Amino acid sequence: MNLLLLKPEEQYSPNTARVTDPRRLRHLHDVHRARQGDTLMVGVEEGGIGRAIITELSSDAVELTFDALDQTPPAALPVHVLLALPRPRMLARTLENIAALGVKELTLLHTARVEKSFWQSPELSVSRIHDHLILGLEQARDTRLPRIHMAPRFRPFVEDTLPNLIENRRALLAHPGQSSACPRQLPLDSPVTLAIGPEGGFVDYEVERLLAAGFEGIHLGERILRVETAVVALLARLF
Amino acid sequence: MNLLLLKPEEQYSPNTARVTDPRRLRHLHDVHRARQGDTLMVGVEEGGIGRAIITELSSDAVELTFDALDQTPPAALPVHVLLALPRPRMLARTLENIAALGVKELTLLHTARVEKSFWQSPELSVSRIHDHLILGLEQARDTRLPRIHMAPRFRPFVEDTLPNLIENRRALLAHPGQSSACPRQLPLDSPVTLAIGPEGGFVDYEVERLLAAGFEGIHLGERILRVETAVVALLARLF
Repeated sequence: MNLLLLKPEEQYSPNTARVTDPRRLRHLHDVHRARQGDTLMVGVEEGGIGRAIITELSSDAVELTFDALDQTPPAALPVHVLLALPRPRMLARTLENIAALGVKELTLLHTARVEKSFWQSPELSVSRIHDHLILGLEQARDTRLPRIHMAPRFRPFVEDTLPNLIENRRALLAHPGQSSACPRQLPLDSPVTLAIGPEGGFVDYEVERLLAAGFEGIHLGERILRVETAVVALLARLF
Repeated sequence: MNLLLLKPEEQYSPNTARVTDPRRLRHLHDVHRARQGDTLMVGVEEGGIGRAIITELSSDAVELTFDALDQTPPAALPVHVLLALPRPRMLARTLENIAALGVKELTLLHTARVEKSFWQSPELSVSRIHDHLILGLEQARDTRLPRIHMAPRFRPFVEDTLPNLIENRRALLAHPGQSSACPRQLPLDSPVTLAIGPEGGFVDYEVERLLAAGFEGIHLGERILRVETAVVALLARLF
């Protein structure tokens, strides 16, 4: 937790906030070993960042005082990630990673090799997704939550939703064996849609549909990576 | 498991192998849903790769036949990673990732912010490390195991071992706030030593010692990433 991320309602005046939730309190006590008078970075969800002083600290609450939370969070990546729904534990880590890396739009997609049971996982609840995203933002000192979209049916998504999602954007399909290497250091002012398949990859039909829709196929080399590793490697290389 | 990686003793003739270990058998049965007559990629530890046919398959053993395992594994990354020992679960995933990404030399280092208890973790046993590396190789279709070195004391390591380890190599210290951005797409014929700190980072003294020893300080931008994420992002950007 490199940033204590406040919910808007926790900031009860322009210069003060109070946090009572056990997770963040425990982290302040056990990891930061925080004491009254310490300063730390705080930010408000969807808002600014600044330094705060701990004016009171107990096992039940922390009181914070600050001048102004007027620093802007780090720049977002200009990318909409279209990701075949990973297995629940991998989803959790991937949500944390994409939030930390600055992705602001993620669509979770059903494909032939996504197990149907994954769509019933408790990890897909709004609150669990939110929790993982918050961990990523706290790690990377960001305040702006990614928006998560669900596309539980491949064909209607490709026919009805995808055309808008790639209009006026560079659309990249990361899939082993495609002819072009992943491009590097794309300009931050030109938006990208990046599609990443499930464990085992997109099936041929899905690759064909996405290429026909306007995606360029790209690869990361000979090595096949786990999905959670590939997501990080692709974003680090692209931007 | 994109490659069935054979121990040398499992290849009992130039064209046949037999695997009886439960983990790989279970994976063949449950994930691959393999049947007699199927073909799959196999490789031998430290050796070549090729396609094999399953000639017999039971719950106790799989018999494989192949013409020649004469394909070379994917190129290694020309990097020695010097990593502050991560907490055990993060170590496990990082070992898998560095093996999958093609790192062949890893030194695990003690630093001020590494908890001493991490050095007592069962994850540091030779066999557990080996197991994680094998998972990474199976994922990335590689056969060459990384070599893992331990440096449980920072100062003797820096004074006695480090000079040889960075001689005639580019030495990069990844640390938030350093002045240069992480370089991109370095040539594969010039070796690099890459130092990565623990959660919470190297302390000032350690940064000074490494810079004095000849490291260049690099950063990945404003966002602070978890160690396991930073390792992947750095390697993807560097090579």
